[in-house]
Amino acid sequence: MLKNFDFKKRDTTYDLEDANQLQEKLALLQRELHATEKSVLIIVDGWESSGKGYILKEIVHGLDPRYFEVSVFDTPSDEEKNRPFLWRFMRRIPPHGNIAVFDRSFYLELMDDLNIADKSLDKKVGHISNIEEWLSNDGMLILKFFLHHKEKTMKKRIEKLKDNEDYAVYLNRRDKTQLENYKAYKKHFNRILERTHREKYPWHILSTEDLELAAKNVLGIAIQEIEKHLQRDLTAVTLPELPEYTEKPLDKIDFTKTISNEEYDKKIDKLQKKAERLVLNLYRQKKAAIVAFEGADAAGKGGAIQRLLKEVDPRGYDVATTAAPKNGENLYHYLWRFYKTFPPKGRLTVYDRTWYGRVLVERIEGFTPEYRWQQAYGEINEMEKTLADDGILIMKFLLVINEEEQKRRFEAREGDPMKQYKITDEDWRNREKFQQYTQAMNDMVAYTDKKNAPWIVVDAQVKKYARIKVLEEFTDRMEKYLGE
Amino acid sequence: MLKNFDFKKRDTTYDLEDANQLQEKLALLQRELHATEKSVLIIVDGWESSGKGYILKEIVHGLDPRYFEVSVFDTPSDEEKNRPFLWRFMRRIPPHGNIAVFDRSFYLELMDDLNIADKSLDKKVGHISNIEEWLSNDGMLILKFFLHHKEKTMKKRIEKLKDNEDYAVYLNRRDKTQLENYKAYKKHFNRILERTHREKYPWHILSTEDLELAAKNVLGIAIQEIEKHLQRDLTAVTLPELPEYTEKPLDKIDFTKTISNEEYDKKIDKLQKKAERLVLNLYRQKKAAIVAFEGADAAGKGGAIQRLLKEVDPRGYDVATTAAPKNGENLYHYLWRFYKTFPPKGRLTVYDRTWYGRVLVERIEGFTPEYRWQQAYGEINEMEKTLADDGILIMKFLLVINEEEQKRRFEAREGDPMKQYKITDEDWRNREKFQQYTQAMNDMVAYTDKKNAPWIVVDAQVKKYARIKVLEEFTDRMEKYLGE
Repeated sequence: MLKNFDFKKRDTTYDLEDANQLQEKLALLQRELHATEKSVLIIVDGWESSGKGYILKEIVHGLDPRYFEVSVFDTPSDEEKNRPFLWRFMRRIPPHGNIAVFDRSFYLELMDDLNIADKSLDKKVGHISNIEEWLSNDGMLILKFFLHHKEKTMKKRIEKLKDNEDYAVYLNRRDKTQLENYKAYKKHFNRILERTHREKYPWHILSTEDLELAAKNVLGIAIQEIEKHLQRDLTAVTLPELPEYTEKPLDKIDFTKTISNEEYDKKIDKLQKKAERLVLNLYRQKKAAIVAFEGADAAGKGGAIQRLLKEVDPRGYDVATTAAPKNGENLYHYLWRFYKTFPPKGRLTVYDRTWYGRVLVERIEGFTPEYRWQQAYGEINEMEKTLADDGILIMKFLLVINEEEQKRRFEAREGDPMKQYKITDEDWRNREKFQQYTQAMNDMVAYTDKKNAPWIVVDAQVKKYARIKVLEEFTDRMEKYLGE
Repeated sequence: MLKNFDFKKRDTTYDLEDANQLQEKLALLQRELHATEKSVLIIVDGWESSGKGYILKEIVHGLDPRYFEVSVFDTPSDEEKNRPFLWRFMRRIPPHGNIAVFDRSFYLELMDDLNIADKSLDKKVGHISNIEEWLSNDGMLILKFFLHHKEKTMKKRIEKLKDNEDYAVYLNRRDKTQLENYKAYKKHFNRILERTHREKYPWHILSTEDLELAAKNVLGIAIQEIEKHLQRDLTAVTLPELPEYTEKPLDKIDFTKTISNEEYDKKIDKLQKKAERLVLNLYRQKKAAIVAFEGADAAGKGGAIQRLLKEVDPRGYDVATTAAPKNGENLYHYLWRFYKTFPPKGRLTVYDRTWYGRVLVERIEGFTPEYRWQQAYGEINEMEKTLADDGILIMKFLLVINEEEQKRRFEAREGDPMKQYKITDEDWRNREKFQQYTQAMNDMVAYTDKKNAPWIVVDAQVKKYARIKVLEEFTDRMEKYLGE
């Protein structure tokens, strides 16, 4: 795309006479976006010293600063390096109705790495496609600009910047390296641009030989695309094809698994000590693990988590509890709040309910339109794959009890003054939907049981049996993962 | 407190026979805390190698991991160093109903700094007293444990730890330094403990010569104090004495200030360019600033913010908009959500409404009980002082319009299709309380106008006048702050 690039072409049919007029027009569109809760992500990437700062400023110049946010990405900090690749970007996506402008983006590390092998490149491109797809599915417009200039222009600009007292602070080693290897970088950028140009989120390559014209071009393209975006019916999507399956995963459970008190007592201490040692080892090896728990109300998630972590050094793990999304959280893509909690290297995060709420409670209660929860299976598979690619061990436990057992446990809770607070009218109402939830759990396991993020379906009719089972599976998998 | 310390005394009247029983008791209390939404912060501090890890584990051993969280604090990272001192601690306080356990705490840096001068020590102690007071006012129980051991015990422990394959990873240079200067550190710790021992949040000094006994002591004390805490009527507090004042700050405004279009046009560009240069200088000098906007609905906060930032490089600032606290945010101390947004070194944060919502909307609408919003004046003064002590420039703008002008602006908004979304039934309802809000604003300015965090009350009847005034005040104060 950079080969034989025409530095004189213009990319928009907009009248580029007056930048102010374009900025005012964009400001009006910003209000419409806010009113309709549609969001836009504008990525400004490209050569160093190609005028990103200038372009950024022209983009936001007329906008209401309360409803846009600029994020600057540089070489990841130590903390960022410890997190999954997409972590720092997902944290900065715009809420519904807002505009986010990224100065550099998830493409930064790829573009910096001149010698990246095709295989690594493809892997990273895969992750980037995921985030673009998630955001796009969620009704976000993604605008990607790549700022391009000639070698001799770049040279002149760097010279000029060095002399500018105010802005010299923005010069860094990256400018120098790119200029010294202009041809190699041009080829490298071209390779990345070609692999990441998609119909739904194409690259706009812009000549910045004339910066003012470039800014007007960016504004023109943004206006044009946002106008289309505002017209777009986000619900008019092709539903993903979800395959039929014949064997229902939950049918395999006969609810007869049990364990004697003697055997439980014999096993539990040993397994808990083993779990302690393994989590400590996770810390020493700087690896990370996710343990996810799902299951009906009163299936025993809390008790299982407590037994799992009983002997583990509390400095080595976090427990994240997930309720239905709250007001503020609804403003973001549903995966946003989970990205905040994914573990850094050396730690374990245990989830009491998870992102699967999207295809369980949000599906059954109608909190989420059908096309969005249907898309979630694929999105979640992709997300878990990117986490596994980042080296994180994922274990997903589904604790299953039958309808009668749930009723027994609810009644027991009501009879126990210390547990009454756990049971509400809502729980009884949810019970009426037991079969619907079972269907949703079957679909969930059928569509999201993957090699690197498997579902471990546990017969949880007998609490002690389930707790031992969880500990056995956890320690076995951790041992393999840590090479013990 | 460490002088002539009796390593054999025991601090609780609890039966210390059986650790398991104590842990079960604590687990029951955890449920009660959760049900009553009362929270507890347990700080475990003390000598290195004195058994903090062991004690931590014993504390949480019986607890439900979904409702407690352990935070480990070490030497601040680069990102943490760039933030205000209390930033990383405020982010980790427990939500209502939960228990947080801090492994080290805000005392860490003080304890590490053997040669800290009295003046610096007093300043930091002041900040620490603030956070303890805020949390305590909010109904949180603060339990502070200091683990103490003899020099020869410490020596033995470090030797033993070196040989332990699993835990050697926790040894660091701090252990060594403390052991080599045991006497000096003992004196230093004593100095800090004496200065930070308060009736409401006293230090419990514990001998860890016998670790098992120490753990039981900690559990006993925790049980005892939490039982008292659960009985406590949090609303039974002495209201702070708020002084009478005779001159109402808002009375000084005569709503006649205006500006001609010519003068506005002459001034605005220059001021905006100056603001641009100053924010860039903030970045170069690695300093930080906070600009807070308050004012009635339609007072022109949004417009003023937009004009203020018009020419500023969008990579140098953040704008934080503050709505009434949402579900999840209500779970925390009201200052918690603002701490997240306070700027790191080199940046500016602009607030469209602020923490003063506590004494404005939350007071008038009755969202917050009287004793809590009355306490807020003092808490906010302390908070702003700690920020100023951390070197942050604070400017607080109150834009004031009169009742007629607000009505005019509301009607104008209703007539403008692009602005209709800004006006709701709630706005009209709030209007009926215009006088109450004026009273609340008078109190706010009277009680929280401080040298290092001044209120700049702006006659905002004429939008253009207010915008110029904000820019002039901003650029003047920034120039002084940056030494220009």
